[in-house]
Amino acid sequence: MALVVQKYGGTSVGSIERIRAVAERVVETRKQGNSVVVVLSAMSGETDRLINLAHQISNNPKERELDMLMATGEQVSIALLAMAIHELGHEAKSLTGHQVKIITNSDHTKAKILAIESKNILQELDGGKIIIVAGFQGIDDRGEITTLGRGGSDLSGVALAASLRADVCEIYTDVDGVFTADPNIVPEAAKISKISYDEMLELAGLGAKVLQTRSVEYAKKYDVNIHVRSSFRKEEGTLVTGEDSEMESVQVRGVTCSKNEAKITILGVPDKPGIAAGIFSIISRENIMVDMIIQNISEQGITDISFTVPKNESEKAIKVIKRISNELGIKDIISDDKIAKLSVVGLGMRSHTGIASKMFDALAKVGINILMISTSEIAISCAIEAKYSELGVRVLHETFELGK
Amino acid sequence: MALVVQKYGGTSVGSIERIRAVAERVVETRKQGNSVVVVLSAMSGETDRLINLAHQISNNPKERELDMLMATGEQVSIALLAMAIHELGHEAKSLTGHQVKIITNSDHTKAKILAIESKNILQELDGGKIIIVAGFQGIDDRGEITTLGRGGSDLSGVALAASLRADVCEIYTDVDGVFTADPNIVPEAAKISKISYDEMLELAGLGAKVLQTRSVEYAKKYDVNIHVRSSFRKEEGTLVTGEDSEMESVQVRGVTCSKNEAKITILGVPDKPGIAAGIFSIISRENIMVDMIIQNISEQGITDISFTVPKNESEKAIKVIKRISNELGIKDIISDDKIAKLSVVGLGMRSHTGIASKMFDALAKVGINILMISTSEIAISCAIEAKYSELGVRVLHETFELGK
Repeated sequence: MALVVQKYGGTSVGSIERIRAVAERVVETRKQGNSVVVVLSAMSGETDRLINLAHQISNNPKERELDMLMATGEQVSIALLAMAIHELGHEAKSLTGHQVKIITNSDHTKAKILAIESKNILQELDGGKIIIVAGFQGIDDRGEITTLGRGGSDLSGVALAASLRADVCEIYTDVDGVFTADPNIVPEAAKISKISYDEMLELAGLGAKVLQTRSVEYAKKYDVNIHVRSSFRKEEGTLVTGEDSEMESVQVRGVTCSKNEAKITILGVPDKPGIAAGIFSIISRENIMVDMIIQNISEQGITDISFTVPKNESEKAIKVIKRISNELGIKDIISDDKIAKLSVVGLGMRSHTGIASKMFDALAKVGINILMISTSEIAISCAIEAKYSELGVRVLHETFELGK
Repeated sequence: MALVVQKYGGTSVGSIERIRAVAERVVETRKQGNSVVVVLSAMSGETDRLINLAHQISNNPKERELDMLMATGEQVSIALLAMAIHELGHEAKSLTGHQVKIITNSDHTKAKILAIESKNILQELDGGKIIIVAGFQGIDDRGEITTLGRGGSDLSGVALAASLRADVCEIYTDVDGVFTADPNIVPEAAKISKISYDEMLELAGLGAKVLQTRSVEYAKKYDVNIHVRSSFRKEEGTLVTGEDSEMESVQVRGVTCSKNEAKITILGVPDKPGIAAGIFSIISRENIMVDMIIQNISEQGITDISFTVPKNESEKAIKVIKRISNELGIKDIISDDKIAKLSVVGLGMRSHTGIASKMFDALAKVGINILMISTSEIAISCAIEAKYSELGVRVLHETFELGK
């Protein structure tokens, strides 16, 4: 019937019992007449155990050898799942990244997938076998073992699905799908049954932890349907797919909040042409991503500029600016990492007006001060004081009537 | 100067501390100007851990998947050793069996090495790198991961040394070398500084556990010098090498005792031509190795035949004979697994006489009854009651003055 790629994360294969449960799920899908390719992460805890061994030896192990080490984690889980499927009386075969030929560049520990050979897998599938592929790993053109970095197994799943032209890439995880807001913050949050790539990218980039940005971008590029669902339940999860007309009817798909950014304020900047450009070009030269920017109204030729950067790069950004502060005549630099970025996301914003003002009103009503604003075609974000994060999410979730 | 292959077993890399110690030893050898290729086993306990995981899933896991699973053990240890060598400021690179291209047949879990590509390794050695190879594993011609079975890492070391035309293959282990007898039985046992392949084969085959028979046979075939030595001490161990004239001057190199065989006695066999041939041909057809054979003097056309087989195959052998016992007119079959095989081994036997009688005399003097005898060009073996094993070894060790 269909060609299905199923990706199971570390928790889903975290014990022998769970590996057995995955085997049953895979076999069930096979029995329904589908061709099945499974992509696995390492058993949960295993990658940490390996990294810990490495760090007992070296504070800064060579990345090539780290990859050599870490790639064993997935090799263990694929072999065990193959055995569990055999026990259920079905044919299965495990394959490492180099056996499939998942070709990546040579950027160890964060390699990019360049190509996947699908011929062998398609042949084995034709023979009726269930194919189990080690996620997270590949080889470069010289046969060196590489790994794909955080969320790499999701990416392996999506890339395999693209290469095999699979009907769907099911990503099994420990949550039920993508929700209108974090259910830990908003108990009434509803599971989203269908969401576009772009919405998912805004939500993922803004802090939803279900799917890594890279995987969604890859899926968008190659038109892969992703079905995010729970490995512990039978219910359908969330389908991440291309836009359709129905999607635009929803103004706001979800609300999210991220605490990953810090605000940097440069005080007493001479309000002359080119000053702002100078500041931001030197920051970007250090590969630091600036997100929101705000510039105060100038008084007596002097102004303040605030912007946000990823928290873990704020020190570096400050150092960079300090280097040129004399030259530019900057008075002082202060930073604030107690901020949060609150966002509403929805394709419908393109054709609906008034969403921003509704958002600002709702926040004002509960006394939340908006520090900065940024907008994209399908998202509106406000920087607020971090302590209001949960309140802000709840208020917006209610305002836009996203609950069940 | 020289090209040295060093093989370290599981105990030698059984902890982070020991891996560090191995790194120091390797670097020391490199500093002396040698090119060094290291072959590693999995950290001790790791292979058992993996097999245990597999057996939690299946009593009879497919051997292909077992190999996939087990090959990860060595991949972990080679990566960790590479990191430890980097910490000492030297260049090192780990390679899996498939990266080296250690080509084997497809006989999973007990594959035979067919060929090893030496080109890549030699190139890296020329560049000054220390090369670390995963022992115990290879790939077949379709890229399937295979393992070599018990003692496989020793074999990887010897085969690599042969392929690279190395000056020596150092096998590091937890004993100091090969001794004139088991030092646990004979405290005065002396370390043998040099021993021929054939003597080592007789000693290994007869029960010395230091080196697997396969590795010694391979070394003999390709003329590889093996240096068996302790990974915990600096002293030289035992050199296993080709024969030289000096070696023949020693009548007895060592004494060994094996309890791996059981004695089977067939009672009341008609003493007619072809009967013995019939019995042993049917046993050999079952791939059971018969070692010693003795036939009693016939009385009234009836005789008894005794022989030894590996203990774990004695039941099978009895079953096979029972099948034809009516046809052959055999009265009864009894078996005894409380026997031991006591042997003296030495190249000098070829040119010296009287060793057998000296052996039998010595055993008789302490009341040890000889049940069966077998001889080869360089070994004499006696089956005795198992309870006399240690006594027998001590008496022969003293008789032939093998002590320090």
